[in-house]
Amino acid sequence: MKAALVAAALLVAAAPAIAADLKAEIQHDNERFSQAFNKGDAAAVAKMYTEHANALPPGAPIASGRAAIQKLWQGAIDGGYKNLSLTAVNVERTGDAAREIGRFSLDAPDAQKNIVKVEGKYVVIWKHEHDGWKLDTDIWNMNK
Amino acid sequence: MKAALVAAALLVAAAPAIAADLKAEIQHDNERFSQAFNKGDAAAVAKMYTEHANALPPGAPIASGRAAIQKLWQGAIDGGYKNLSLTAVNVERTGDAAREIGRFSLDAPDAQKNIVKVEGKYVVIWKHEHDGWKLDTDIWNMNK
Repeated sequence: MKAALVAAALLVAAAPAIAADLKAEIQHDNERFSQAFNKGDAAAVAKMYTEHANALPPGAPIASGRAAIQKLWQGAIDGGYKNLSLTAVNVERTGDAAREIGRFSLDAPDAQKNIVKVEGKYVVIWKHEHDGWKLDTDIWNMNK
Repeated sequence: MKAALVAAALLVAAAPAIAADLKAEIQHDNERFSQAFNKGDAAAVAKMYTEHANALPPGAPIASGRAAIQKLWQGAIDGGYKNLSLTAVNVERTGDAAREIGRFSLDAPDAQKNIVKVEGKYVVIWKHEHDGWKLDTDIWNMNK
């Protein structure tokens, strides 16, 4: 009984740490994502998604599945988008998934081909697979 | 033993029906949402969200909490946005939440105040509360 109470107390004490760890874990994956993108490696970016993931970019149709998602990011790299930065703002676990709300910034060419800083926000549903968290649903938009 | 097998078989048979029911249930809520919006009732729209929900509109900052979300939709109604239509495309349950990918269309005034049809896509994380499903995270963008 006493051991069970101690175990329960430890679990309660550990809960905020687990939540903080999940956000840190997701932020670590965000950094892997932006590093791959900023190196121009669309294949490495696509591997961070689940096989049947959906990406919903503004101004373009839904990209379904890893191959379509790789093409989407290759298009952004070829189009001169760079210096992507991703910041997890709020991460919440739901079953075997995690919902992340985040902010991003990147340098993008405008209509006159000048490089401008673009800021926006996103929601990612991550799924835990045998080799870690993968993006399963990814949608974003711009702040302006 | 036989009863257990029959029960297991029934459960297997019921699984796709449950998934279809969830999508139909969410679509029913989508219709309540668009009806409230199209009547100009931002308070009724806001009540469909959880108390601490986040809405992430394109071209504007995150609206956190029901009051901010009501203000967001009141602004859209006052701005002349109308004839909202929402269609659930893919709904997946994760724990006590459901992830919906959907499509929307609505009539919106352009820079010259002409009404144009806008089409887009969205992701909603629904949470099940005592009185039904509520939008907890809501993000969208335009197709063009």
